[in-house]
Amino acid sequence: MSRDSAVPPPVTAVLDESSRWLPARLGEVEALLRRCSSGHGELLGADAEMTLEAGGKRLRPMLVLLCAGEAGGEAEVRSAAAIELVHMATLVHDDVLDRARLRRGKPTVAATSGSARAVAAGDLLFSRAFALLAEAEATREIALLASACVSLARGELAQRSDAYDTSISAQRYLERCRLKTASLFECACLLGYDQRDPGAGEEEMAQFGSRIGLAFQLLDDVLDISGPPERTGKARGTDLLDGTVTLPLIEAAADAEIRATDLRSLRAADAEALCERIAATGALDTVRNRALEMVADAKGHLDRAGIEPEQRRLLNLVADGVVQRYG
Amino acid sequence: MSRDSAVPPPVTAVLDESSRWLPARLGEVEALLRRCSSGHGELLGADAEMTLEAGGKRLRPMLVLLCAGEAGGEAEVRSAAAIELVHMATLVHDDVLDRARLRRGKPTVAATSGSARAVAAGDLLFSRAFALLAEAEATREIALLASACVSLARGELAQRSDAYDTSISAQRYLERCRLKTASLFECACLLGYDQRDPGAGEEEMAQFGSRIGLAFQLLDDVLDISGPPERTGKARGTDLLDGTVTLPLIEAAADAEIRATDLRSLRAADAEALCERIAATGALDTVRNRALEMVADAKGHLDRAGIEPEQRRLLNLVADGVVQRYG
Repeated sequence: MSRDSAVPPPVTAVLDESSRWLPARLGEVEALLRRCSSGHGELLGADAEMTLEAGGKRLRPMLVLLCAGEAGGEAEVRSAAAIELVHMATLVHDDVLDRARLRRGKPTVAATSGSARAVAAGDLLFSRAFALLAEAEATREIALLASACVSLARGELAQRSDAYDTSISAQRYLERCRLKTASLFECACLLGYDQRDPGAGEEEMAQFGSRIGLAFQLLDDVLDISGPPERTGKARGTDLLDGTVTLPLIEAAADAEIRATDLRSLRAADAEALCERIAATGALDTVRNRALEMVADAKGHLDRAGIEPEQRRLLNLVADGVVQRYG
Repeated sequence: MSRDSAVPPPVTAVLDESSRWLPARLGEVEALLRRCSSGHGELLGADAEMTLEAGGKRLRPMLVLLCAGEAGGEAEVRSAAAIELVHMATLVHDDVLDRARLRRGKPTVAATSGSARAVAAGDLLFSRAFALLAEAEATREIALLASACVSLARGELAQRSDAYDTSISAQRYLERCRLKTASLFECACLLGYDQRDPGAGEEEMAQFGSRIGLAFQLLDDVLDISGPPERTGKARGTDLLDGTVTLPLIEAAADAEIRATDLRSLRAADAEALCERIAATGALDTVRNRALEMVADAKGHLDRAGIEPEQRRLLNLVADGVVQRYG
């Protein structure tokens, strides 16, 4: 249940279909991210910069920009950069927590510079996000992002406190996903949402973001079990080895043998076999279908948000994208 | 060079001398801190709450309140709570970085709950600070605090990148202290500073805060060498064992034998002997005198800030306090 261990190729489709404005604006976000990570002299160390350079598909910035639509401008670019800085801060800290050596197939900050520098680098990225918004006196945006950050940290704490507990319910798992992942997707949509045209739209956009965030996490957890490692950039069963109980395992636990598994004694060499056993129960299809239902639900909220047809079309592509990773 | 490993008893003097308003307002800060750490249900875990309960003398909140003066109110109480939440977040993360088992003589979050939960608990405290200010749309305060947080993280990164390097200069050490410690003291003074009466005062208050922050860190680093452990709550030479090169060691390195010390191979059993050798060079007096000069300098800035005589008197007591810990 790490965040963003795999990125959705359909993002490319969104870029292709959005003519020139979205790629150009994402380019501005990228330039701003670079400015935020440099300019600290030698003191910054290469860690935060390395994290930014490592890339990712900038899914949350894209949501901000798409929810704002073509009329968006400097303020939305700034919000998009800020949410990506927070996202990266959580990735750097996650890698410390999970003792992860690789992310997206590349060495993590924690692996190359040690956990001490990774904690500090994450703190720096986090602080820069708020500093960036504060410079522009973007009070609404700061409130949204701070509130999302509280949820992210609560989700992380919940995951730690649930570690190795195979008796947790699907409901508890979903609440954790809501905190740990969906809150930032929801925040992205609210950051982008055009306030000049208020109404029911804001709540519908929040629901849209939250649901695709949940679907994203469910798919991520499916991919941890299904792999393939050459696509996800990490070994199958990485979450299981960390003691993170995700929905595929919860669903598969109807099988008595799987239910009896003690994750604490799971060895790396046996993780793949456990993944196979979970897959054999059909749990992955169950979870995938659940994710698809969430995406359908998300699209319903989007329909009711009263945004431009072109915006809706592109956001629907993103929604499809989060559940179409690696077929 | 950890932060706040010992707290100044003269704080008590300030409380005694400030009649009723300061203790009452600090009580409001305490109540607000408690509200911020609770109300997250079972998900919060006890970690963040434990950190708040562990106390400390609330030196930074006190600076906020004193700089605001008796006329301060709800806004200053909020700022005071926010800066303490950030300070606590840094303590929790520091303890992960330093693998510290004890703080103020009590087990750290990192020791009782593991580094994973400590990283998340720190992130939560950090996020709550910004959420608290954002709820009140306190834009100026958010900008000040975010900027200080960037400095804190840069200071932490600098400390990591300087680790075990006994060739660093006093200047480099002081720059690190400015980032890692003084920036939050400066922020406290600016948060409290009464803007209704603008002028040169703001810059003078910033300088006052920065200088007493520096002096505070210098004294902290003296106490790491001098102890006594029963007063500081940690073993002598803890920083040396972490590879943190502080001013006492830099000053003492005029002694060839000390200069030749390889901190990487320093064993815990030998740390006290090294502390004795450093003390024997007179370096502790040199550093203490430097801290006293900084306090004198700080008071000069305070004189020029144009604040109420009563406020000045109390802030001077705080300034004296940071260098009068344990005689």
